[in-house]
Amino acid sequence: MRVRNKPWAAEKLAESTQYVVMEPADWKGKWQERFGNEQPIHVEIGSGKGQFIVEMARMHPEVNYIGIERQTSVAVMTLDKMIESGLKNVQLLNTDGENVADFFAEGEVGRVYLNFSDPWPKSKHDKRRLTYKNFLRNYEQILVSGGEIHFKTDNQGLFEYSLASFSQYGMTLKQVWLDLHKSDFEGNIMTEYEAKFSSRGDRIYRVEAAFPKKAAADSEK
Amino acid sequence: MRVRNKPWAAEKLAESTQYVVMEPADWKGKWQERFGNEQPIHVEIGSGKGQFIVEMARMHPEVNYIGIERQTSVAVMTLDKMIESGLKNVQLLNTDGENVADFFAEGEVGRVYLNFSDPWPKSKHDKRRLTYKNFLRNYEQILVSGGEIHFKTDNQGLFEYSLASFSQYGMTLKQVWLDLHKSDFEGNIMTEYEAKFSSRGDRIYRVEAAFPKKAAADSEK
Repeated sequence: MRVRNKPWAAEKLAESTQYVVMEPADWKGKWQERFGNEQPIHVEIGSGKGQFIVEMARMHPEVNYIGIERQTSVAVMTLDKMIESGLKNVQLLNTDGENVADFFAEGEVGRVYLNFSDPWPKSKHDKRRLTYKNFLRNYEQILVSGGEIHFKTDNQGLFEYSLASFSQYGMTLKQVWLDLHKSDFEGNIMTEYEAKFSSRGDRIYRVEAAFPKKAAADSEK
Repeated sequence: MRVRNKPWAAEKLAESTQYVVMEPADWKGKWQERFGNEQPIHVEIGSGKGQFIVEMARMHPEVNYIGIERQTSVAVMTLDKMIESGLKNVQLLNTDGENVADFFAEGEVGRVYLNFSDPWPKSKHDKRRLTYKNFLRNYEQILVSGGEIHFKTDNQGLFEYSLASFSQYGMTLKQVWLDLHKSDFEGNIMTEYEAKFSSRGDRIYRVEAAFPKKAAADSEK
């Protein structure tokens, strides 16, 4: 998303060490230590202005949340919400979500959220979509066995692409919503973007998709 | 679908032995003999008034088509189209599509079409939906290894259900269309029902889903 450049944002993020992790690779495999508990860790890739991740953290104190947002001028808006909330179960990474495998150990993450990712509508840009197979491989690596992606978008083309991409990767679609806001789904936290586009009458699509169980985990049964 | 009862329809079907197969189980494993060629056999389950199956047969002379329609008063409308067409690559079964495994041998069918199947919207009726796992098992049995279902519907709930049902059965979604008539899909043959509901502005959903390769076929590689 485009927001005005904020030259002061980088400094503010760097100073807010309670919420912002500047060197996330240092915490690889040790995130529960950072949170000081053994709760599952759920990661939103592309957390934008932060409404989703902060509200989820408020609603679900039994889960630790980490938002990843590349754009500094956007990430600082999440930081403001985190500071205001005073919540201890949410953290922010101002970096590129494509590199999640650098920040999390195998199986360290309980769930991945993707909300209103960039649709990259031209077919020649399909490799940049966050539901492209190369990214799925990264998510699978950091997720627990059978871990899930929960994905929302208003973009029809991206949703069509992503359903096929998940399926062709070997993931199982647990449930699909083709008009989320007219469904009986409970507990939906709207992103800023979602509220705006839904109020215009656009449909919101949602899917929960699970990776296959990992072989190692199967052998432990 | 509901049409007026036609007491004469059963007799007309029984007499039209060129197009209607009254004892389909007798042809199990021998359908190519009946067509007199070695072309692949594509089956539409619930062929309704027949526009789809007859037009597909006209457009694709290299394929043999079989329509299955339970309702006699509806099936006779397909028969009229077949007679008018004079086509030799299409046949009609006036029976229950749920029993396809009684009519076709293992691997005898190249593709299954489901168009605008009854949505059975109440969740307690999910076992009657033609995309329920028990029916998928029948389709898998009669299909070639890696065979596909091509499914269209205007019913959002049935489509949501079916995507998850295909995926959870182990099928792979090859491609998904969330608004078929506004897509660049070519060669769509509209059913009578589809033309009516699309003209009202309803979306048409479509998916092509493939069964896993059969083990026997894999070993032949």
